[in-house]
Amino acid sequence: MRVGVLTGGGDCPGLNAVMRAVVRKGVQEYDHRFVGFRDGWRGVVEGDTMPLDIPAVRGTLPRGGTILGSSRTNPFQQENGVRRIQENLAKAEVDGLIAIGGEDTLGVAARLTDEYGVRCVGVPKTIDNDLSATDYTFGFDTAVHVATEAIDRLHTTAESHMRVLVVEVMGRHAGWIALHSGLAGGANCILIPEHPFDVDEVCGWVRSRFKASYAPIVVVAEGAVPRDGGMVLKDDSLDSFGHVRLSGVGEWLAKEIEQRTGKEARTTVLGHIQRGGTPSAFDRWLATRFGLHAIDAVHEGDWGTMVALRGTDIVRVPLADATARIKSVPPALYEEAGVFFG
Amino acid sequence: MRVGVLTGGGDCPGLNAVMRAVVRKGVQEYDHRFVGFRDGWRGVVEGDTMPLDIPAVRGTLPRGGTILGSSRTNPFQQENGVRRIQENLAKAEVDGLIAIGGEDTLGVAARLTDEYGVRCVGVPKTIDNDLSATDYTFGFDTAVHVATEAIDRLHTTAESHMRVLVVEVMGRHAGWIALHSGLAGGANCILIPEHPFDVDEVCGWVRSRFKASYAPIVVVAEGAVPRDGGMVLKDDSLDSFGHVRLSGVGEWLAKEIEQRTGKEARTTVLGHIQRGGTPSAFDRWLATRFGLHAIDAVHEGDWGTMVALRGTDIVRVPLADATARIKSVPPALYEEAGVFFG
Amino acid sequence: MRVGVLTGGGDCPGLNAVMRAVVRKGVQEYDHRFVGFRDGWRGVVEGDTMPLDIPAVRGTLPRGGTILGSSRTNPFQQENGVRRIQENLAKAEVDGLIAIGGEDTLGVAARLTDEYGVRCVGVPKTIDNDLSATDYTFGFDTAVHVATEAIDRLHTTAESHMRVLVVEVMGRHAGWIALHSGLAGGANCILIPEHPFDVDEVCGWVRSRFKASYAPIVVVAEGAVPRDGGMVLKDDSLDSFGHVRLSGVGEWLAKEIEQRTGKEARTTVLGHIQRGGTPSAFDRWLATRFGLHAIDAVHEGDWGTMVALRGTDIVRVPLADATARIKSVPPALYEEAGVFFG
Amino acid sequence: MRVGVLTGGGDCPGLNAVMRAVVRKGVQEYDHRFVGFRDGWRGVVEGDTMPLDIPAVRGTLPRGGTILGSSRTNPFQQENGVRRIQENLAKAEVDGLIAIGGEDTLGVAARLTDEYGVRCVGVPKTIDNDLSATDYTFGFDTAVHVATEAIDRLHTTAESHMRVLVVEVMGRHAGWIALHSGLAGGANCILIPEHPFDVDEVCGWVRSRFKASYAPIVVVAEGAVPRDGGMVLKDDSLDSFGHVRLSGVGEWLAKEIEQRTGKEARTTVLGHIQRGGTPSAFDRWLATRFGLHAIDAVHEGDWGTMVALRGTDIVRVPLADATARIKSVPPALYEEAGVFFG
Repeated sequence: MRVGVLTGGGDCPGLNAVMRAVVRKGVQEYDHRFVGFRDGWRGVVEGDTMPLDIPAVRGTLPRGGTILGSSRTNPFQQENGVRRIQENLAKAEVDGLIAIGGEDTLGVAARLTDEYGVRCVGVPKTIDNDLSATDYTFGFDTAVHVATEAIDRLHTTAESHMRVLVVEVMGRHAGWIALHSGLAGGANCILIPEHPFDVDEVCGWVRSRFKASYAPIVVVAEGAVPRDGGMVLKDDSLDSFGHVRLSGVGEWLAKEIEQRTGKEARTTVLGHIQRGGTPSAFDRWLATRFGLHAIDAVHEGDWGTMVALRGTDIVRVPLADATARIKSVPPALYEEAGVFFG
Repeated sequence: MRVGVLTGGGDCPGLNAVMRAVVRKGVQEYDHRFVGFRDGWRGVVEGDTMPLDIPAVRGTLPRGGTILGSSRTNPFQQENGVRRIQENLAKAEVDGLIAIGGEDTLGVAARLTDEYGVRCVGVPKTIDNDLSATDYTFGFDTAVHVATEAIDRLHTTAESHMRVLVVEVMGRHAGWIALHSGLAGGANCILIPEHPFDVDEVCGWVRSRFKASYAPIVVVAEGAVPRDGGMVLKDDSLDSFGHVRLSGVGEWLAKEIEQRTGKEARTTVLGHIQRGGTPSAFDRWLATRFGLHAIDAVHEGDWGTMVALRGTDIVRVPLADATARIKSVPPALYEEAGVFFG
Repeated sequence: MRVGVLTGGGDCPGLNAVMRAVVRKGVQEYDHRFVGFRDGWRGVVEGDTMPLDIPAVRGTLPRGGTILGSSRTNPFQQENGVRRIQENLAKAEVDGLIAIGGEDTLGVAARLTDEYGVRCVGVPKTIDNDLSATDYTFGFDTAVHVATEAIDRLHTTAESHMRVLVVEVMGRHAGWIALHSGLAGGANCILIPEHPFDVDEVCGWVRSRFKASYAPIVVVAEGAVPRDGGMVLKDDSLDSFGHVRLSGVGEWLAKEIEQRTGKEARTTVLGHIQRGGTPSAFDRWLATRFGLHAIDAVHEGDWGTMVALRGTDIVRVPLADATARIKSVPPALYEEAGVFFG
Repeated sequence: MRVGVLTGGGDCPGLNAVMRAVVRKGVQEYDHRFVGFRDGWRGVVEGDTMPLDIPAVRGTLPRGGTILGSSRTNPFQQENGVRRIQENLAKAEVDGLIAIGGEDTLGVAARLTDEYGVRCVGVPKTIDNDLSATDYTFGFDTAVHVATEAIDRLHTTAESHMRVLVVEVMGRHAGWIALHSGLAGGANCILIPEHPFDVDEVCGWVRSRFKASYAPIVVVAEGAVPRDGGMVLKDDSLDSFGHVRLSGVGEWLAKEIEQRTGKEARTTVLGHIQRGGTPSAFDRWLATRFGLHAIDAVHEGDWGTMVALRGTDIVRVPLADATARIKSVPPALYEEAGVFFG
């Protein structure tokens, strides 16, 4: 059996770990052969391949990024995209595809399987953790780890200089990184896209924190918005991976806090350091297990499925489920964190 | 309402995070007052208390260890232990107890509640992750993180000098730390207590690894034993927390490998660095959520229960369930990892 | 003997380590007593003190920030500032002062000693490493460590997505952090205040890097400026510690690179995470040794001096020397790094 | 010009960084060509080479170990060792050699240059920092960083359980790692080979520490010995790199402390994690600068020299100087640290 592999969408620690597990088990246990497609769906549309065998994946477990490269190419927006995919898979004698990616990449895989009979198995990936049907995606724990370390470092500045520190973390549609790193880092206020914030309430927490003890740390997801509008970002264009550019809500909020409370406020925008570098131990473990189970699904011909984490088990779910809706932070979970605000 | 808190058993990152959450929510939302008992059950038996309020827990989220101290005192082995507990709780006007600990500490809490009507809520703690009824215990992720970082560092020595590196990690009865850190660190062989190992098979993996590429890294849990017996440890005494002392299986195995393969082998015993220091972001999040839910259980008078992680939810289970049996690594999960051996 | 201690200027990892060493040695070896002045020179001007003894400094070695607080108060700009200092020192029965700070704080100490006979010993501190008369200042190694870790993480994003990553690091007047972290992180271009850059030359390096291998990483000090002018920052105000605010040269440069090369470029502004958190091992060692030698100078009555690192030795230099001029990156050292550009 | 490169002796973070700098500057600025000899002097004696060009060193800056491999082969102990070296260098058309290594490797280079006219330039390497003629060697800062992180983690266990923790660090002949990590980690006692220790004095510090506050942490270099003899190690054999094996002074001392003070004591032997893994920012900077200056020396034909750090400058010294004597911890420096004992 000959299996194609591609990685699509934004950078995410653990992509190489998935492929290493896929190839190790596929070659050793099932006698599979592999072909890598470069830069996500672009490589399949254009027939751009690279060798993928055990030597190719050796030593990649701790390496961030993806040895296959990535892109946001959507074959349904390419001329004859689907037909070229079918031709290229036939030419490369590929019996089945493993697509590792987020909502967009997996959505393409789901349509290709359902509508065109292209045989796909999916592996969920997003540092934002906003994919339904899996408890966690790999990359998320690493992002939370990086953000928490940054917040830890900011505490001493907050304490020594009595000023407000605003930390903008990733999360355009869902506040998982903000919620987890904010709780783990001891933030005094966490703002997420699911729950539009009230600037005056934030300023109230800032003031009460100053009274109680030290200076406050505000963690804000890049997609958080004020309830009462009025936020004008300097540059609201999105980059090619859909993340808002610098000069976003964090900086805007810091200025509002300064003006309303009279306290000096500073912003740190963590940016891409949240999605690069070596994966955390948890993400390596999760990515490895996803890989082992994805190649099992391929071996069993269980096309149109995606591997997912449920508790401590890896299960299979329909690919379509994963992309049906974004997994948001439930209101009750956000309220639970509220005890630490202020 | 007046709530007592104690921490028992071995050191574990996240103990302070639990208490911080308990006190913050208890004081702010339920108007509870708290009293800390020093050194686990010893403090309750002897009436040794310390103040526990919001200032006492401030800044403790990232700090390992426990501000209350810990011990392995078992009140059922103390003269009049139970009666003294009842008297001291009455004297301190404590309405309920939160016991944070592992199998032994929670076992005492379960018996006190069931047999003597002492009102307890439990919080599961063990870096070994071997408590039933919860997906994970806090402290485990930190231990895996520390062990994985160490294995990462050993890879370059293994590669540069072509010798076998044996890493002994914690896990007297269960191989969770070995399994997770071994997978995350790219070990070529993982040995756990649940599955007695065959030294010749290990040597076979060592030889095949040398042929394929670089030198092998062997991760062995301190409680792993050879299938065919013959292991004579230099000093098999247990410390007061039940962990075997240095000069254990790691060193024994390294010598066996040297003798049977002719390859130089070295041992690193990570020891207590696995259980000390700042908790990982995951453990801070889990410990904080355990604390928030434990104080909810106290508020609702749901005595005899323990908080537990199920998927991404915190649930309550009977205290007795947690201590019924050790959670071992299932054979299928261990076999899954076998694809990376050799 | 009664010794006053103050910490002035911006946050810097190692401040507590200096004080711990000062107090430990002063109390144990010389029988000194100590008084802490809060928030730098403000505390001396206003007579705002706190106790400073061995229990007060216990456990502070690994803690960033300063237990004394800090400010930028300049007594020469306060009404009767010097007279109030003299009165408050007399009232507190302080025989001599240890001033820990950067150019401004030490400049005040130098003038107070020279012109008013206030007995001061200085300890040099700046994460920017731009103080003359010492090989290194503590805090610098930590800042370089944090920036290098961030650059490490950005490499995988650069590689996977083939886009330019601009990292803005601290350094308003001197490029030491940029130079060291850029070299240690494998940057393809390092821009420093001492050497105005040519945007077209930068774009040339960007293009050649894309041809040779992967995407480029550009490290730019916050104080770097283009040779040919034309840089319009969105907000060029300085914060109270003299650092330019967000939306600085990094973001400006990323946009210029995008426009001139057609390559997507992203900016990360590390901000205050470079100056917070636990000090590196090197900084703890340096800060501790500075503290031990500062209290020796006090004991010997060697007023008007500052401790400094020369090779591996701690020496004493006149306080005035330290603040005479900024220590810039020498042209030859910058050229040496040029072999890695492009 | 054609330049040979070899790395000899024990593993050390920064070896690859040296070679990367050598090759980058040599190829780009001087039009040199390179050949790598495998496994130190063994590769030269046996004519075992590998290609060494810019693609070969790409991405190696953050990687520990050495892409050339290493060994302890001494050509003067090989039959016709020197003649074979001369023949192999001639056959490979090598005009000069860069030898990166410690005392032994550089000692060979010195003799080959002085007695046989083999043209060598040396780069000093040892994690132990015990080479004369240079302020620091690369690898040392990384080892201190790893040891300090471990000590940080042990503090919480020491505090929570009131027991003595003994940490054995590397340093067979010199106590630099013990001294620096002990100071940086806040150890209560540091024992080094240069100063035989008195067990009773150590026990005195242990007791006084328990009285003053928390449990003590004892940092002991592997080569430290008791003043009064009586130390019987379980296995005193040396490994092939001259380091004593596990079951050394740390474990012996822990048992002595237990017996004499009645306090429980535990040992952690850090072992090879001190010499593996990614180099610290400082070591990457130092190794890179050593490489840049070594290739300058080659270019200028300055044979028989070694690059060295003096303050912040890289200088050249005679190769023979580096290996004349071990750089020990001076008594005054050790006494300086004594203020923190007990």
